[in-house]
Amino acid sequence: MDYKELALIKHKEWKGKLEVVSRAPLATKDDLSTAYTPGVAQPCLEIANDPENAYVYTRKGNMVAVISDGSAVLGLGNIGGLAGMPVMEGKSILFKSFGGVDAFPICLDTQDTEEIINTIVNIAPCFGGINLEDISAPRCFEIERALIERLDIPVFHDDQHGTAIVVLAAIINSLKLAKKKIEDITVCISGAGAAGSAICRLLLSVGVKDVIMVGSKGIVHKDMEGMDSNKKELSLLTNKTDRRGSLKDAVAGADVFVGVSKGGLLTGEMVESMAKNAIVFAMANPVPEIFPDEAKKHGALVVGTGRSDYPNQVNNVLAFPGIFRGALDVRAKRITQKMKIAAAYALASLVSDEELNPDYVLPGAFDKRVAPSVARAVMESNED
Amino acid sequence: MDYKELALIKHKEWKGKLEVVSRAPLATKDDLSTAYTPGVAQPCLEIANDPENAYVYTRKGNMVAVISDGSAVLGLGNIGGLAGMPVMEGKSILFKSFGGVDAFPICLDTQDTEEIINTIVNIAPCFGGINLEDISAPRCFEIERALIERLDIPVFHDDQHGTAIVVLAAIINSLKLAKKKIEDITVCISGAGAAGSAICRLLLSVGVKDVIMVGSKGIVHKDMEGMDSNKKELSLLTNKTDRRGSLKDAVAGADVFVGVSKGGLLTGEMVESMAKNAIVFAMANPVPEIFPDEAKKHGALVVGTGRSDYPNQVNNVLAFPGIFRGALDVRAKRITQKMKIAAAYALASLVSDEELNPDYVLPGAFDKRVAPSVARAVMESNED
Repeated sequence: MDYKELALIKHKEWKGKLEVVSRAPLATKDDLSTAYTPGVAQPCLEIANDPENAYVYTRKGNMVAVISDGSAVLGLGNIGGLAGMPVMEGKSILFKSFGGVDAFPICLDTQDTEEIINTIVNIAPCFGGINLEDISAPRCFEIERALIERLDIPVFHDDQHGTAIVVLAAIINSLKLAKKKIEDITVCISGAGAAGSAICRLLLSVGVKDVIMVGSKGIVHKDMEGMDSNKKELSLLTNKTDRRGSLKDAVAGADVFVGVSKGGLLTGEMVESMAKNAIVFAMANPVPEIFPDEAKKHGALVVGTGRSDYPNQVNNVLAFPGIFRGALDVRAKRITQKMKIAAAYALASLVSDEELNPDYVLPGAFDKRVAPSVARAVMESNED
Repeated sequence: MDYKELALIKHKEWKGKLEVVSRAPLATKDDLSTAYTPGVAQPCLEIANDPENAYVYTRKGNMVAVISDGSAVLGLGNIGGLAGMPVMEGKSILFKSFGGVDAFPICLDTQDTEEIINTIVNIAPCFGGINLEDISAPRCFEIERALIERLDIPVFHDDQHGTAIVVLAAIINSLKLAKKKIEDITVCISGAGAAGSAICRLLLSVGVKDVIMVGSKGIVHKDMEGMDSNKKELSLLTNKTDRRGSLKDAVAGADVFVGVSKGGLLTGEMVESMAKNAIVFAMANPVPEIFPDEAKKHGALVVGTGRSDYPNQVNNVLAFPGIFRGALDVRAKRITQKMKIAAAYALASLVSDEELNPDYVLPGAFDKRVAPSVARAVMESNED
């Protein structure tokens, strides 16, 4: 049986991948009087007196909403909130299994930016954090920014920042093998959407020398026409040598290639045009921008993908459970750039110098140290 | 230790009364590939092709949102969504324990009617039903009506209909003891808010001869000034003899008194003024409109309250878990008046003629037959 058929059979069997269970006994009249009326009035009054008490008497402090409008689900595109629900359920149980974080899927019936922002603000009280998921660019930037401004709980668009954190960790370790310093490298990013933009910003914030972004209309440069405000901002931060042209022109001489675009875009020839000891993370799914054996044949030193069946899988599960675990535990109001960088370095440090090799630059998804290490890094970087 | 102190200690210990757990294994790479990427794309595509598949491949079909704006929480009044959260968590676990229904609390940060309606519509896709809770009248009527119109899943304001169903069941059985027919009785309802209005409508729909409602400004009558649209409608349906005055004037000669108002409002003298074999349900909490011994002393045949420490507790937990269990199982689009009536008769029938006595007109909250019987009645009355 192929995995597609199996996934359908299993999903049918599970009848939903999550459920809501009680943490309080409800077997006797006394149980009811304590967990429900009349006893429940007391924690209500305590919270009415001081909203912070919601963290003491309710699940708020461990509860994250996994919210999507279904506009950019996996590689499936805009299938809508309801159809995206299996992904949001899946994400929610990963939160629990890997980070001990309760997470609940909220699938939206609107794709209007203002409506989404208002809806999330309106349902925020019962959550300790908001994980945005599979919302298309550039709307995702505006939605995240508005929510960060309006809410006092962490808001995190995982497609952007989760990916960026894991990519940074992978690059940190790959550079040890390539014997290069992060401030000396040029990175070419193929894909200027949510993930590409966040990767670009995170790399620049740790001092990467230059980033060249390539979107569907070629290299992003400051004179490009029809840019939205996100691309305009990126055009001013990147491409210091003012290159023009296509991916081929962008990748020539680059130390690192990061692909969050489409399968097959990177040719062996392009890899050959990169700097020595080239580092390639080709994360298009399911077909990467270039397959690892092909990239290696053309001189790449380290190659990673988004797939679990090749080495160096860039898997967001390495980041988001620990990010929220740490943010919730320290009750951070925001996930800052500093936290993301600390998380990436913590993740990278889990691969020891002895273990480090071109096929092992990231810890595995089931490495039990990952979420606690990332959480600790986030907590220690909190400045609220 | 008094129960208030105990409730605080226990709530602190529980750290939230519910949690979200996984129904799918996540121990191996294969598990991840089935429950999450790449396998999860398949159920997404199936749902994109046919939204009904959400009932097959996700938790939607067993998931209810317990939604409140915190405007009328218990007897505490308008304490806001966040402070109402312990109640919504409590309600959610009652759904699970008593009906096997997964329920998730959504506490709103808005009390604007339009905002509430839009927010609920926007988050509806992941839920199989909406249970509205502790929303003040008359806003609750408009919100419920709009949601019923706009959504194709059951929407149920429990403070209204849950209470009404259990009261109707209690009256059905009490009338057997009083040897009266439902079409011959006059009912006086003290309290013209959410619960009082719904009780009135349900009683009229089963053929009660007349209802006289008493609100904060006295008996509701057709010439009353300053009525909202709900009261105006009720004024045309009730009070056929056009009485005027206060509770004292309303209750004289009535066969049944239903109190959803304030403690102590009903005096022994008023009970004496009622028809022979008077039936009194005094449900103000924690102090009823009249205490049972006082009411009996003045001639009442059957007395019930909202409290668990007196006989005949009118407890919504007798209704809502079975109501949603049935509605979800038959995938009803609405909870109709017919379903509510059937549920009340099913509930009443659980007290056999042999058991029936003035101190036992309703089954107990822990009677295992309750939710399945109510669910069956709802399913059999579905006409969608």
